Amino acid sequence: MTSPSSRRCPRIAVTPGDPAGIGPDILIAIAQNPLPAQIIAVADPQLLADRAQLLGIPISIKTFEPAAEAQPADAGELFVDPVPLIEASRPGIGNSANSAYVLASLDRAIDYCGKGIFSALVTGPINKHLINQYLATQKQHTFFSGHTEYLAAQTNTDRVVMMLASNANNSDNRTEKPMRVALATTHLPLRDVADAIQPAMLEQTLQILHQDLVDKFAIARPRILVCGLNPHAGEGGDLGSEEQTVIQPTIEKLRQQGLDLSDPLPADTLFTERHLQQADAVLAMYHDQGLPVLKSHSFGEAINITLGLPFIRTSVDHGTAFDLAGSGKANGSSLSAAIDMAIALSQAQTA
Amino acid sequence: MTSPSSRRCPRIAVTPGDPAGIGPDILIAIAQNPLPAQIIAVADPQLLADRAQLLGIPISIKTFEPAAEAQPADAGELFVDPVPLIEASRPGIGNSANSAYVLASLDRAIDYCGKGIFSALVTGPINKHLINQYLATQKQHTFFSGHTEYLAAQTNTDRVVMMLASNANNSDNRTEKPMRVALATTHLPLRDVADAIQPAMLEQTLQILHQDLVDKFAIARPRILVCGLNPHAGEGGDLGSEEQTVIQPTIEKLRQQGLDLSDPLPADTLFTERHLQQADAVLAMYHDQGLPVLKSHSFGEAINITLGLPFIRTSVDHGTAFDLAGSGKANGSSLSAAIDMAIALSQAQTA
Repeated sequence: MTSPSSRRCPRIAVTPGDPAGIGPDILIAIAQNPLPAQIIAVADPQLLADRAQLLGIPISIKTFEPAAEAQPADAGELFVDPVPLIEASRPGIGNSANSAYVLASLDRAIDYCGKGIFSALVTGPINKHLINQYLATQKQHTFFSGHTEYLAAQTNTDRVVMMLASNANNSDNRTEKPMRVALATTHLPLRDVADAIQPAMLEQTLQILHQDLVDKFAIARPRILVCGLNPHAGEGGDLGSEEQTVIQPTIEKLRQQGLDLSDPLPADTLFTERHLQQADAVLAMYHDQGLPVLKSHSFGEAINITLGLPFIRTSVDHGTAFDLAGSGKANGSSLSAAIDMAIALSQAQTA
Repeated sequence: MTSPSSRRCPRIAVTPGDPAGIGPDILIAIAQNPLPAQIIAVADPQLLADRAQLLGIPISIKTFEPAAEAQPADAGELFVDPVPLIEASRPGIGNSANSAYVLASLDRAIDYCGKGIFSALVTGPINKHLINQYLATQKQHTFFSGHTEYLAAQTNTDRVVMMLASNANNSDNRTEKPMRVALATTHLPLRDVADAIQPAMLEQTLQILHQDLVDKFAIARPRILVCGLNPHAGEGGDLGSEEQTVIQPTIEKLRQQGLDLSDPLPADTLFTERHLQQADAVLAMYHDQGLPVLKSHSFGEAINITLGLPFIRTSVDHGTAFDLAGSGKANGSSLSAAIDMAIALSQAQTA
């Protein structure tokens, strides 16, 4: 399905997310400038045309043809792989009925990514509450806990790893390399973190991180810095034992498999130039150990990348902002950075 | 004891710490340049003279006279308030007998700070292990757990608060204000943090932070941003309840006392310019929530300030580095930054 020329021009699918949110707005704004890839909105074309009209931004909708050669759209043009809305959508007015549309567009994108028609998926903001309202009305009642979990389930992926990267175009250039921080645990209450750090999950997490740095980031031999769990990485056991009982043994096991990993390092000294310049990624043990410093250096515009999936997936780092939908005030920089990253990874993968 | 002129020229006591470490080296190096304060080493004068000779750095030792008018030393001069070594000290060779000297110099500095002879104390690196070796040989066997705890005990201070500040002279100028991060808990295993966050300790910590920002930093109405304990500050209870049960009620109680505090904020979005520009300090709930980002922005040269003591105390952020003592390779930037901060705070307090 992918010809040599389509490999040179990646096809990036964008699901704009909730039709009542700012996803359509910011995608329309981004389409005003040319990009070195074919961007395909997996969405309702009429929704996009209506939103563009409301915003007073010209947009020319072009129907995506999987069989055609991949080509970038011109400025002001947007390819759309059509998925119909269930009910008409009004900006800012959430409607759980359209959750079926949100899921259908995701399913389409997942299917096409799996078939190699799309080389990456960029997801816009959704409203979990509305999706679960909708699912509660369905016979096969499931729970939607987030994009990442949904993508993992639909692709039969056992474990995914959340990684955030600084926006290289917008960094303070302190380090030549972009800062990349993956998380061993994500959205857990702090009191549950220590018990969650177990050998099997840590081993799998580090393997996924290593392999995706090789496969998706085209880094031949990635160097990973591993944070300790405790302050000062436990200070030889005085401030906690997980470094000695869990983290260090896992690191040593994985080194025998060829992974280039640091010992567990104190998080408060790891995030300095001296250490980061020698690393391709950092594994933080939990959310607030790694993300404050990453987001601080990326001016709040970090890019969320899901590792472990069979395809490249990046994501915006904000919500639906219903109150801004249709207003022209939505900030598209996070989606723009996520698209740029998806393009860069697609190019690295096929280089 | 302090005349109007001595108020204009602050007297800053420096305890160089372990005589076998790099403390003497870096203080001698700093004394090569003039400073807008009278720096007084509370130390053995012969130790300093010998170390200077070993390093090949000229130093003129001047005996400190408490009754004399405060005056800055000239470049290459250093005032010394003499405290004799117990045994001769060799660079790099730890000797627990000299722990009595280390403690005596601290006691002298504490005494003179309490009497207003010194306006601030800057502490150099010590070796806790050697001090505890020495204490074990004494009849009144006590345990030395660190400078901060010792200073609190000797001044009958119930609770102190550890705050780190970015080195304003060396920041990346992302924000006009220096970044200041105080900690609700410090050197605790991560699994003990959640239970340690209790209303009484949090209330006292915030009161000390507020009051010292007023008294020592001369900030009339400090604005403090308070981190949540859990990721996303608990996300309305879905990711932990301490924000609702402990942190928010404490904040509301203190607001009624006039403190200007934020609600518990997600740590991963708090440390961005938009938030920090409106704040004088951040209270992080634990070590690795606040210090990685602070140290990252201060290029590893954060200044440690102890709040809650009856006097100003700053500290280096490194150890004794026995292997570098006498070599000329020790980096004095942390001590230099700690002295600069002590001078600035002394001047603010008397402005």
